[in-house]
Amino acid sequence: MLHAELVEKLFAGEPRAVARAISKIENGAEGASKIMKEVFPNTGNALIIGITGSPGAGKSSLVDKLALFYLGRGDKIGIVCIDPSSPFSGGAILGDRIRMQTLGLDKKVFIRSMATRGNLGGLSRATVDAVAILDAAGFDKIIVETVGVGQDEVEIVKTADVSVVVLVPGMGDDIQAIKAGIMEIGDVFVINKADREGVLRTEKELESLLSLAHRPDFWNSPIVKTVATENKGIEDLSKAIESYNDFQKQSETSLIRRKDIARWRLLELLRETLLAKTLGANGTNEKLEILALEVAEKKRDPYSAVEEIINSI
Amino acid sequence: MLHAELVEKLFAGEPRAVARAISKIENGAEGASKIMKEVFPNTGNALIIGITGSPGAGKSSLVDKLALFYLGRGDKIGIVCIDPSSPFSGGAILGDRIRMQTLGLDKKVFIRSMATRGNLGGLSRATVDAVAILDAAGFDKIIVETVGVGQDEVEIVKTADVSVVVLVPGMGDDIQAIKAGIMEIGDVFVINKADREGVLRTEKELESLLSLAHRPDFWNSPIVKTVATENKGIEDLSKAIESYNDFQKQSETSLIRRKDIARWRLLELLRETLLAKTLGANGTNEKLEILALEVAEKKRDPYSAVEEIINSI
Repeated sequence: MLHAELVEKLFAGEPRAVARAISKIENGAEGASKIMKEVFPNTGNALIIGITGSPGAGKSSLVDKLALFYLGRGDKIGIVCIDPSSPFSGGAILGDRIRMQTLGLDKKVFIRSMATRGNLGGLSRATVDAVAILDAAGFDKIIVETVGVGQDEVEIVKTADVSVVVLVPGMGDDIQAIKAGIMEIGDVFVINKADREGVLRTEKELESLLSLAHRPDFWNSPIVKTVATENKGIEDLSKAIESYNDFQKQSETSLIRRKDIARWRLLELLRETLLAKTLGANGTNEKLEILALEVAEKKRDPYSAVEEIINSI
Repeated sequence: MLHAELVEKLFAGEPRAVARAISKIENGAEGASKIMKEVFPNTGNALIIGITGSPGAGKSSLVDKLALFYLGRGDKIGIVCIDPSSPFSGGAILGDRIRMQTLGLDKKVFIRSMATRGNLGGLSRATVDAVAILDAAGFDKIIVETVGVGQDEVEIVKTADVSVVVLVPGMGDDIQAIKAGIMEIGDVFVINKADREGVLRTEKELESLLSLAHRPDFWNSPIVKTVATENKGIEDLSKAIESYNDFQKQSETSLIRRKDIARWRLLELLRETLLAKTLGANGTNEKLEILALEVAEKKRDPYSAVEEIINSI
């Protein structure tokens, strides 16, 4: 497919063109930046929802049910799943297929798992670009779901219009562990599996934690209780998401937040581009291999090795 | 403290010098690379143990008990905790103080939490450098503990001599979720909280997952059951760690693994150095702010903004 055809079909929302464009930006293929330059001005129409939480919180079920809810209202849904999986497990692709079956092979749903490829990173950049592609392709709601709860994953969720943090009852230590990383990024909190014991306690703990948070926009993050597997609380969740979205649109801090996201995005892209340019220079890859061996054998320290690479270009 | 004095005291294992050196490398302060160049040739004596697993698996208790066990054998212990916390929660430093009390204010223990500072990243690099500093300072065992289970955190744990993955009984979905990211990095698996129901099932599930894994070194990762809060199974864990360490030292794939780690480390450092040099150039920071605002207002796409930054230097 030629560039012009690809972009035209992408704007028409054709799934194969969308998938191909995402693959190109994921692999940093030639023409990726050209696609993104055309895509970017056509973004801004979708509602982007970030969903995070620790493993076992039932995020996938929740995302599926939320997607089905929006589908029922006639929306087109994009789901981007950040899955730090490995080539060994092949989990990402298999997972997509299973979920496509759950959600029906509906043309109004597009699911894509993003995984890092090799050493060069770029997962964050590829993910926000994939979201932009879905936005430009006319998807109404785009859900970004992270399996991990690492620093990068948190950063990615923060780029959404509305960030949702999913907890489960009786986490105990977990709230403490999770607090650190993601407590203050939640615009909406969900206590999933709310038919289990300990819901009230978790809710109280969460409330008291949230009362300590000082958000620059003075938003009081609502807590929604759901049982995703039984489709309970999904509409409440959609309302909570909507209410924060309405709020943030008219908030004075909205431009500041968008600027922060843009700065982060530029830095990610800059970091990746600088590395790619450096490694693309003649002989750098070979030099890197030689230096890596010397460092492994303790004949060299990493700092002087990196200085040598930089000085040689 | 002058550089020569700092390095001398660091090699003597003086806690304040160790702490100061780690702060310097964490903040990318002047002189940081000079310290690391002297530190690096003096590393390689410590046993580095990486410990990961999902929130709520009881990693902190397990690490504390393992540290106490090694202390009892006369070892000096360094603990580096990767905590993607925020300035808001202040969790990292408070957590360190509480743990210092648990472990006693023993001069043979050094605990340090690493957190990202601002946008520039460098957490991975800072963490492996902190481990190298503790190694050169004469700590016998260095435990790297991650709270998060993101891509970066997994990469850091992979740089250890022995990587330990901690699970708890009855995780169900969790094993599936965790599998993707960290299953194949475990040299040793721990089922903690092994007094709970469902231990056998979790063990069986884990065994069948592990039977599918193809490790390049043909190691069969042992499964150890612990109840960290009651100090049960800790010696078994130490034996499993030792057995893998003995194994990997004579394994033919050992140099390949060390070279992979070295390459990853060089790329992390290269990425960070290139970005720092670019942002350090005259006027780049101001340009970044202007471009971030333009991107936020959709007057610009990120790709052409990054091109402009690169072309201007």
